[in-house]
Amino acid sequence: MRHRLKIIPIGGFGEIGKNMLLLQYGDTIIVIDAGLMFPDGDMLGIDFVIPDISYLISNKDKVKALILTHGHEDHIGALQYLLKDLDIPIYGTPLTLGLVEKKLEEFRLKANLNKIKPNDTITIGPFTIETFRQTHSIPDTIGLAITTPVGLIVISGDFKLDQTPIDGNPPDFNKLVEFGKRGVLALFCDSTNVEQPGITPSESLVKSSFENIFNSTKSRIFLVTFASNFHRIQQAVDMALKFGRKVAIAGKSLITNIEVAKRLGYINIPDDIMINIKDVNNLPDEKVLVLTTGSQGEPYSALSLLTNHSYKQLSLRPGDTVILSTKPIPGNEVMVYRMVDQLFRKGVEVIYGKDAGVHVSGHAAQEEVKMFINLLKPKYLIPYHGEYRHLALLKKIGLELGIPKDHIIIIENGTILEFEDGRAITDGKISLNNIYVDGLSIGDVGNIILMERKRLAEDGVLIVGVLIDSETGLILDGPEIISKGFIFVKDSEELIEIARERVREVFRKKAGKNGNINKEALVKETLENFFNEELKRKPVIIPLVWEI
Amino acid sequence: MRHRLKIIPIGGFGEIGKNMLLLQYGDTIIVIDAGLMFPDGDMLGIDFVIPDISYLISNKDKVKALILTHGHEDHIGALQYLLKDLDIPIYGTPLTLGLVEKKLEEFRLKANLNKIKPNDTITIGPFTIETFRQTHSIPDTIGLAITTPVGLIVISGDFKLDQTPIDGNPPDFNKLVEFGKRGVLALFCDSTNVEQPGITPSESLVKSSFENIFNSTKSRIFLVTFASNFHRIQQAVDMALKFGRKVAIAGKSLITNIEVAKRLGYINIPDDIMINIKDVNNLPDEKVLVLTTGSQGEPYSALSLLTNHSYKQLSLRPGDTVILSTKPIPGNEVMVYRMVDQLFRKGVEVIYGKDAGVHVSGHAAQEEVKMFINLLKPKYLIPYHGEYRHLALLKKIGLELGIPKDHIIIIENGTILEFEDGRAITDGKISLNNIYVDGLSIGDVGNIILMERKRLAEDGVLIVGVLIDSETGLILDGPEIISKGFIFVKDSEELIEIARERVREVFRKKAGKNGNINKEALVKETLENFFNEELKRKPVIIPLVWEI
Repeated sequence: MRHRLKIIPIGGFGEIGKNMLLLQYGDTIIVIDAGLMFPDGDMLGIDFVIPDISYLISNKDKVKALILTHGHEDHIGALQYLLKDLDIPIYGTPLTLGLVEKKLEEFRLKANLNKIKPNDTITIGPFTIETFRQTHSIPDTIGLAITTPVGLIVISGDFKLDQTPIDGNPPDFNKLVEFGKRGVLALFCDSTNVEQPGITPSESLVKSSFENIFNSTKSRIFLVTFASNFHRIQQAVDMALKFGRKVAIAGKSLITNIEVAKRLGYINIPDDIMINIKDVNNLPDEKVLVLTTGSQGEPYSALSLLTNHSYKQLSLRPGDTVILSTKPIPGNEVMVYRMVDQLFRKGVEVIYGKDAGVHVSGHAAQEEVKMFINLLKPKYLIPYHGEYRHLALLKKIGLELGIPKDHIIIIENGTILEFEDGRAITDGKISLNNIYVDGLSIGDVGNIILMERKRLAEDGVLIVGVLIDSETGLILDGPEIISKGFIFVKDSEELIEIARERVREVFRKKAGKNGNINKEALVKETLENFFNEELKRKPVIIPLVWEI
Repeated sequence: MRHRLKIIPIGGFGEIGKNMLLLQYGDTIIVIDAGLMFPDGDMLGIDFVIPDISYLISNKDKVKALILTHGHEDHIGALQYLLKDLDIPIYGTPLTLGLVEKKLEEFRLKANLNKIKPNDTITIGPFTIETFRQTHSIPDTIGLAITTPVGLIVISGDFKLDQTPIDGNPPDFNKLVEFGKRGVLALFCDSTNVEQPGITPSESLVKSSFENIFNSTKSRIFLVTFASNFHRIQQAVDMALKFGRKVAIAGKSLITNIEVAKRLGYINIPDDIMINIKDVNNLPDEKVLVLTTGSQGEPYSALSLLTNHSYKQLSLRPGDTVILSTKPIPGNEVMVYRMVDQLFRKGVEVIYGKDAGVHVSGHAAQEEVKMFINLLKPKYLIPYHGEYRHLALLKKIGLELGIPKDHIIIIENGTILEFEDGRAITDGKISLNNIYVDGLSIGDVGNIILMERKRLAEDGVLIVGVLIDSETGLILDGPEIISKGFIFVKDSEELIEIARERVREVFRKKAGKNGNINKEALVKETLENFFNEELKRKPVIIPLVWEI
């Protein structure tokens, strides 16, 4: 029986993060990636957001595999939630699975893990999946070329075209050309960095910047990077070796990750240059390199502790050099720059910012994306891994390359894309929710609760307790008024007393006459009006009325 | 009698915004600028922040003048609050005072306004103040050279060194050289843009970008800029003239500002190209230029209304071109890019970002700052108008220029800087608070209330009402539980019922035996523990206990 190929984006289409994409043909569904997304500033109190897998759960029997393209949290970070409902084999490269194993340990989960390498081929039902090497800001990243009954679908995964990557493995252009020759029906292409013209600099660029800094610095060096940027870590370690510094690591995630990458051979750190963080104080300044994390200004990160308190007896001090070998994730700017200010205030030499040459992106800029598309010559181009503007800009690039307008398809999460007879159609939507994780609660916090939090945050809350005589309808005791985030009741005694009296008066006038009146609403309305008149402010008012 | 010159920074030292600086000699205080600051993301529900003028109020009789360097809100935006307590003459250039007048009208205030121009000299007590022309992103910007009994103090104000400004008035290098020759004791220098190497491009750079866009665009053009960027507005109007478009204005602040600048001769818009916003729909697309504001993604801005609803019968539609001739103010990135996404989703052509050439900064980059300092050759350099890192980077620049380390003084708000016998000393601090404006309340909202708002925002609130028999100490009715921003009581009936029972049980066990027990604390503690165990979450718990 012939089916259509259904492709359903669950996350990462119209947003950056919580990447997840489904391919379905007949009774077989494969899932590509299971990532989390860090919350926006207005997702108050949320730890992170994960993909809504209800479609997978209601098609449980069909789901045959999860394939991971690389080990970043926006690709593997929601795995533990998926595994609670789905017991499926997971495929990934050795480093990716190494990081997954650590995660499974932490959550005390078991899973069926299957190692794949670039240039492997696996078959799952009607899908034949060929993996190909991509260059990105974490080693062992792959893209997927999936032969389906309706044609060849290429999934780029996250990538840049780094001609001189640190591990000496440039992108596999042969493979891309070969797929191009075979004919690519559709390419799902990373759009994260398409606002950037030109070419993303090679990871190797960072080398010469590091070399200059290490060469001219006599103080202790603290290098801050993302915990999974193993190429960056390798480059820092190489400099330590070259300039005779010992290496200490501060930060749990970094220690764990380096342990995994070292064991699997993805980074090379001679044992004799590693020292315990506690021994840093025993070394001369020019012999110290500390690798650490916390570049986003997170309040309890190792960098933050090193700056403001101490991290295992170690503290930053005037004259130290801190290299921020990262960039602010959009939305984190204020926190990041507050931390940079704090470092400067400490008298630390801070090397940061786009002109310092100590960080490069892991995603392809415009010219790389063009080259990638030209190598693959897809019939259909589907931008992904981007907010809407990135998808739209990638569409523009596709048009420049001569792909017809109706062969570049912008879809957002939930839109079902179908392929039949070499033709794409969008056919309906599945309904998806943002699943917010807050503490142990998954999905308990919804949009309405977030809206409530926003109002509480902006206006504060006033709790008003009243004890009422159920016979007369008059106030026996109260109103008792408690304010949080609105005004200080103590400092505003007079105002509060007028407010109280206003409530009593209203009850004398209205409530006595009519027992059916909604007393909660009456308290609420009275005080809303009062504070709006007096202060032009609208706290959330919560009446608690007892009738006895 | 000889006094020391006291210089006290009230705002703008260690932060960007709410600029205010005092000079005091004997019984004379002059105030330079009175600006507001837009709130950080964690100043929840705050409209803006204003300088703390308690020192001025307690020295009321000494305060002789307020001098405004230009008309931006971070320099004039707190004026109305200052005038409530201080009745002092205000000095400013014509455009600055024109904008001040509009503000006074709005707040129904009167003030003693005194026009000054570049190259004027005014004497206030022991201070002789010479004004000099500066180039910045608003016309009629001045710097101040203040001859005091202890030496010449130069205050840069906001500036860049634009060699080809739109109004044809480059910076007054002669004056700077002359001050340098006379000997500058101290220079207060704008550090806002010192993270940027090289030179800030001239405002004229925007011209060629605009020309390319207007030349190749057949659709309607919506140009979004800051409401006070009159040079930018002039350039857009010039393009409309050149390419035969009519000009409509959307947005109250922009209409007001353009009216002021036009009346005072700071922009030149022929009457016959202006049209009412309502008539835009009657014109062919290629004849339309709409000037508007809302570049920061503000939800009720004209741009936002044009995008999502309609602004006086006008709406954006697919194919329109929107030029974002601004940049995101730090902290606004998420809101700005959400708006850009929304525009792309509408099918609008959006021209934005640093590579588009449609915006330049109004502040000096590193090489300009160096030139400025070299022209003035100050004995002391005091960085201002910057967050701490900017101050520290300007210090580095000063060192590169050969100014001795102890002659570059980083001070933050409140630190008293004194000059005597050609020598600077920092001598104590005045205590300053952030004054938060929220609705009509000025200063009511303090740091503790902001902390309460943050907790409410992140964790939500649970209100628990209990009616207790004062004789037995047992619960008569309740607990009644109301949740805001925590969980849905309806969806979590079972959990809430267990929580209720837990409270009842505790009261049965403990409260009955001991009437002196703190019942509020008991309710609070019981539920805190319960929700921490069950959900690993910590809502703000507010008990309201009645004993009858």
